[in-house]
Amino acid sequence: MSDNRTRITAEVPPVRSRGRAARLIQRGTPQPRHPYICRRIGTFNILNEEGLSLIETNADQLLKEIGMEFRDDPEILSIFRDAGADVRDTRVRFELGMCRKIIRATAPSQFRQHARNPANTVMIGGDNTVLCPSWGPPFVHDLDRGRRYATIGDFRDLVKIHQMIPYLHHSGGVVCEPVDLPANKRHLDMLYTHVRYSDRAFMGAFIGSMRAQDAVDIAKIVFGKAFLADNAVLYSVSNTNAPLVLDSNMSGSLKVYARNNQPVACTPWTLAGAMSPCTVAGTLAQVLAEALACLALVQLINPGAPCLMGSFASTISMQSGAPTFGTPEAGKMVLACGQLARRLGVPFHTVGSLSASKLPDAQAEQEATWGILMSMFAGANVINHATGWLEGGLVTGFEMTIIDADLCGKVASLFEGIDLSPNAQALEAIVEVGPGSHFLGSAHTQSNFLSAFYRSSISDNNSFEQWSAEGGLDAAQRANGQWKRLLEEYVDPGLDPAVDEALQEFVALRKASMPDQNYF
Amino acid sequence: MSDNRTRITAEVPPVRSRGRAARLIQRGTPQPRHPYICRRIGTFNILNEEGLSLIETNADQLLKEIGMEFRDDPEILSIFRDAGADVRDTRVRFELGMCRKIIRATAPSQFRQHARNPANTVMIGGDNTVLCPSWGPPFVHDLDRGRRYATIGDFRDLVKIHQMIPYLHHSGGVVCEPVDLPANKRHLDMLYTHVRYSDRAFMGAFIGSMRAQDAVDIAKIVFGKAFLADNAVLYSVSNTNAPLVLDSNMSGSLKVYARNNQPVACTPWTLAGAMSPCTVAGTLAQVLAEALACLALVQLINPGAPCLMGSFASTISMQSGAPTFGTPEAGKMVLACGQLARRLGVPFHTVGSLSASKLPDAQAEQEATWGILMSMFAGANVINHATGWLEGGLVTGFEMTIIDADLCGKVASLFEGIDLSPNAQALEAIVEVGPGSHFLGSAHTQSNFLSAFYRSSISDNNSFEQWSAEGGLDAAQRANGQWKRLLEEYVDPGLDPAVDEALQEFVALRKASMPDQNYF
Repeated sequence: MSDNRTRITAEVPPVRSRGRAARLIQRGTPQPRHPYICRRIGTFNILNEEGLSLIETNADQLLKEIGMEFRDDPEILSIFRDAGADVRDTRVRFELGMCRKIIRATAPSQFRQHARNPANTVMIGGDNTVLCPSWGPPFVHDLDRGRRYATIGDFRDLVKIHQMIPYLHHSGGVVCEPVDLPANKRHLDMLYTHVRYSDRAFMGAFIGSMRAQDAVDIAKIVFGKAFLADNAVLYSVSNTNAPLVLDSNMSGSLKVYARNNQPVACTPWTLAGAMSPCTVAGTLAQVLAEALACLALVQLINPGAPCLMGSFASTISMQSGAPTFGTPEAGKMVLACGQLARRLGVPFHTVGSLSASKLPDAQAEQEATWGILMSMFAGANVINHATGWLEGGLVTGFEMTIIDADLCGKVASLFEGIDLSPNAQALEAIVEVGPGSHFLGSAHTQSNFLSAFYRSSISDNNSFEQWSAEGGLDAAQRANGQWKRLLEEYVDPGLDPAVDEALQEFVALRKASMPDQNYF
Repeated sequence: MSDNRTRITAEVPPVRSRGRAARLIQRGTPQPRHPYICRRIGTFNILNEEGLSLIETNADQLLKEIGMEFRDDPEILSIFRDAGADVRDTRVRFELGMCRKIIRATAPSQFRQHARNPANTVMIGGDNTVLCPSWGPPFVHDLDRGRRYATIGDFRDLVKIHQMIPYLHHSGGVVCEPVDLPANKRHLDMLYTHVRYSDRAFMGAFIGSMRAQDAVDIAKIVFGKAFLADNAVLYSVSNTNAPLVLDSNMSGSLKVYARNNQPVACTPWTLAGAMSPCTVAGTLAQVLAEALACLALVQLINPGAPCLMGSFASTISMQSGAPTFGTPEAGKMVLACGQLARRLGVPFHTVGSLSASKLPDAQAEQEATWGILMSMFAGANVINHATGWLEGGLVTGFEMTIIDADLCGKVASLFEGIDLSPNAQALEAIVEVGPGSHFLGSAHTQSNFLSAFYRSSISDNNSFEQWSAEGGLDAAQRANGQWKRLLEEYVDPGLDPAVDEALQEFVALRKASMPDQNYF
């Protein structure tokens, strides 16, 4: 962070007349990086008790009457049958309240996910929020090279950039999909890249048991087998196929992570109007039903295994069927889901700065700002896609990553709440300055200005004249220079050569064990 | 709104296969315009009881120890002296709790501001929010003509555009400063333009008693003298010269409006670090102290006159001294000010979509979205500058107005809350569709999709290929076409020819009564 800060500082114009303090701030103000956000202001409750009970009752009703399908995974059907659920073919139905009871009995309300650098270990649950980068896009975009298929080179660059952004807390997972590599092997390269180029916590591969097992084996090399047995080091997301289906790709990885005590975010993925009803209340009941069934599965597989209730609920355009993001309805859904997760007693996973825009433009930031603020007010404990998403998740944008990173810094600062210390009350300063004067040179300002306000890395607040003289760049153009600088100034966290060698050997062995495939 | 909607609808691509319903939505879905937002979800409370009491105690302490300056207006000093305040020179000090007691005794908690079209009359206070356009900028900006000094022609165009935007509720005041007209007369042209080209509520001139009296006289022509005596028809903002000064330009207009029973939003205007301490808690105490003194003044002049506690509190860059907007600290301050106003028992006035950006770009919408969401969560009753502000208020942007207008529509939709009706619960729809299918063609979707989701006028949610084929425009470029269409399709609300003639006569007389001046 200090490198980043210092460099950004070096760009600002000379402060006119504030002497030593001005020079100090010109040199940058390195401050300790926070490994995650500790929220000191509350959550926003969009539903009252009656509304929450109604959604819970409806979810229970859905689980009893329709149930959920678990396809191509007979083992899961046995697990549910043994637990007393009503299993017919692949359909599993649950008595009212059954899933909730299973979850509440053993699921932890919070847990630590360890990073290989202990300073970057994150606490998941409670009043804490962990911001993760973009996840999943097969394309990348930057102003120089435009939109193009992502490669492992882009993946590596994004991991390095994320590592340099102080306001991200996690290295994430598929920060972009490196489509230049075989589909059945690229997870190995992605996992290696996270471990090698970042020292933050990261995500496991999430499609299928084979990939999940590879992630667990890699984690054993990095953290040691004994440590892994009792500690969370891989984070994974398990998406349903809404409505009310979990397929074996997802259940396969869910089982591996649950059995290895690694956290699974059970995350119904729905676009209301297509994969759930075109109403908020209907979608909420369906999302809760799916989450309850999957979370119960985790606890039945391994009672006490860490897990999160997730929600990725947005909308479609009723005119074209296209996915839409940063919408009022998405805001309502995430606020309510946060409340539902808290009542269930598990941490809440959701999504952040989503946009359907093709460019890092006004649409992109209107939607991104909307989205991450809603998730923060919802009390999210993990926010995936906090940076970089464009085109509804088809693209990770390099400039978008930088612009969203500033937003991540802003929310962290907002959720620190209001300092009410005597120094912050500043009564003496107001008395000293008196009516009609100004605070610029006051003793209070002099002693507080280094840490007084959050400092945006992307906003241009200069005069029109100065901005014009500097080229009249828009935010995306300014961000273009910034991601390149972060890459140039990337600080390699280093990796024990023995671990590195063991990892490379494992990856090579696994790759050699199977032919390349270009499908999942 | 129906015109606007229809036109926007006509642009979307054909829906593939949804028959009659698809054709219906292609033709547009005219719905009644809401004259203001009735919030059905609560406010966000950033401070607890202890924090609020602390700020209130500190504000009282400031009013007792330092007091406030009322400059060049001896009448005000007499008013305060008669009320028992400690007046020395231009400094007025208040016993602990004195201002609050005066305000709470007589200030109304809500009131109506009438528009000349009764359908556009707004309720100010309670759970209602009124969104007003940009206020004050001497420059305007659009993509075709760039940044330039504003003229009365721009003013007229903006009034027309605002009138066509369904999500704005008010015609505002100085939507831009027509600097082609003499400084001492342009308020007459501005007031005439609001009355002539809009039938929504509008603001009175706010600098000096002469201009305020002109506004009152114009309102008498439009609404009738008798009606004006008992009804609010002019809205005005009175800004302090922070710290702790009210000058005679502001007190002059405040007196005229208060005596005529017209609402005054007593709005400390501060940039923390320059005009108030560089801390949130210090700024809050100062803002509250200033608001208390001015609100007490309104109630002493005319007990029961409508008034609002206002706050315009942002920050400066500690590096350059430049004003900064959409910051975490601005968010904290508006959230707390909303709570303080509710405890005082008066409606809350604040600001919305502010940005320091020079262009309607990613910075602009990151800051604008942040700002208006904070003000909405703060429970603001009137939000000034809900659209169009750029460059920290130096510029009203035409494209920015359109992009922000979409944001206004979004917040209105969000704050409607969650529909929990049986139809919205959609349980039967979920049962009907069943696991693994989709809701696109379901009976529930068919019968709800016309009103299911808020429909953005600015977001492009199409595929990359379609977006490219349509020119690959960013949001600002799309907005460029939209404001021109709104102007082309502007529907003149009409004005009684007798009223129009009387207004023109009044304006001509007033202009002839004094020489042109190019200063205030």
